[in-house]
Amino acid sequence: MYECAIIGTGPAGLSAVINLKLHNKDYIWFGSRQMSNKVAMAEKVANYPGFPLVSGPELAEHFQKHVREMELEITDKMVSQIMAGKRGFTILADNDIYQAKTVILAMGVVTSKEIPGEKELLGAGVSYCATCDGFLYKGKTIGIVCTDKRFEHEIIYLSELAEKVYLFPAYKDCTIDRDNVEIIGQKISKVNGENRVSSVTLKDETVLPLEGLFCLRSSIAPTTLLPGLAVERGLIPVDRTMATNISGCYACGDCTGTPYQYAKAVGEGNVAAHSVIHFLSEQNA
Amino acid sequence: MYECAIIGTGPAGLSAVINLKLHNKDYIWFGSRQMSNKVAMAEKVANYPGFPLVSGPELAEHFQKHVREMELEITDKMVSQIMAGKRGFTILADNDIYQAKTVILAMGVVTSKEIPGEKELLGAGVSYCATCDGFLYKGKTIGIVCTDKRFEHEIIYLSELAEKVYLFPAYKDCTIDRDNVEIIGQKISKVNGENRVSSVTLKDETVLPLEGLFCLRSSIAPTTLLPGLAVERGLIPVDRTMATNISGCYACGDCTGTPYQYAKAVGEGNVAAHSVIHFLSEQNA
Repeated sequence: MYECAIIGTGPAGLSAVINLKLHNKDYIWFGSRQMSNKVAMAEKVANYPGFPLVSGPELAEHFQKHVREMELEITDKMVSQIMAGKRGFTILADNDIYQAKTVILAMGVVTSKEIPGEKELLGAGVSYCATCDGFLYKGKTIGIVCTDKRFEHEIIYLSELAEKVYLFPAYKDCTIDRDNVEIIGQKISKVNGENRVSSVTLKDETVLPLEGLFCLRSSIAPTTLLPGLAVERGLIPVDRTMATNISGCYACGDCTGTPYQYAKAVGEGNVAAHSVIHFLSEQNA
Repeated sequence: MYECAIIGTGPAGLSAVINLKLHNKDYIWFGSRQMSNKVAMAEKVANYPGFPLVSGPELAEHFQKHVREMELEITDKMVSQIMAGKRGFTILADNDIYQAKTVILAMGVVTSKEIPGEKELLGAGVSYCATCDGFLYKGKTIGIVCTDKRFEHEIIYLSELAEKVYLFPAYKDCTIDRDNVEIIGQKISKVNGENRVSSVTLKDETVLPLEGLFCLRSSIAPTTLLPGLAVERGLIPVDRTMATNISGCYACGDCTGTPYQYAKAVGEGNVAAHSVIHFLSEQNA
């Protein structure tokens, strides 16, 4: 069992992991090895103290350098579910299960909204994990909602299994070009089905019958990720120690609310790590 | 009237001022032009994201560079008193009076305790400002408590006015060597006087008669600085927006509590600045 699992490789997660490593805590850090897209995409950053005026890619490289020099290990897996138990947390990441005494949520803010019906049919045709559930849809018709180009390899993987794919790309420059993949230029307004997904309704009220819907997003809505977590308008309320309503679960960075700023994120990541260190020492006392 | 006065030139104050300047706010920033002693004195800093392993002086230089490149102006004066009024704040810094609609307190944590009797006799023989009150003690006997080498020029100034000076240096390598300055190797346990300072009592119960006591410290206890400010065990309670109990007054950095970390300080400074920007826009609405 890890002492702490950190979800998210943006500035908040980085700041937390740096401090956990310095305190010799046994951690597992989930997220993209390319770290934050938002940092790398930023044109200019003027208000991160110590770097008077840097481009997003420059700042991202400084963060990457910190990861390399401190040899901070990133587990490049998508966390799709966390369960809070009596003795800690169980974490589902791609196909694997991990356990940790504490959790730090640093997955950023969810920019795309859940689709009506999505949450109700999660695990009954709706999936967040191509690697986990793809094989269930061999020879079938599926839909894929994708918010990030870096998941295109998962689209290809799914299109090799499924008979037919309706693709709903919510990002620019989609390069997918396969015979059995139909790119749909409008959004899904509803996921339909009694006990299992049977179809999706589009904005123009077209109904597309399908058996599975994969939602490949950079981040999952916090309540869906961790049932029981208090969330207000998509954001996680925390106190000054970055504690959420669940004992042992802390949150930091954009997922806790505005201002959406790197300086705030690293500050909160630092505080969350120190709170985890304190929590673990109380547990061991 | 300034839109915001920021007290303190450590990482929290810097982060706040960067954001206020980027938002074209009319600010006045009080503190040492050498900025934070604590940063410069730090041996190694490993957990400020973006700088994998820097020495304190290196990080201080990065902060200084940010100040220079953004042309952030520092008013190198010691704020000794802030008064909250209906339309903003009145600030006494050295001999001058300033007014500001909002205040950001970022003066760090007070490492030295107030002396019993000090607060009661403030303005009646106890002074925090050599430049302001020195001339009152021409030809008289005074005491000077000093916590920081960078105030030695004020000790010299006072020793040129006073007949006799008892000096209580609370820092290493005191270089003051003047005929009328007697260095005392123990602490003051009490400041005595009915309506004005008449003497001080030392730890060994010696009583030294004197007419004035100057306390030259890097920071003043928050309640003394701003009467009415809620303080708990020397620290300023704030909410998630960095608001204190006084409307328009925000606090950030070490003065709000642990962990005492640069990352936390810059994060809180960022949030405090954004709260001030929001507060000002509501006021103008």
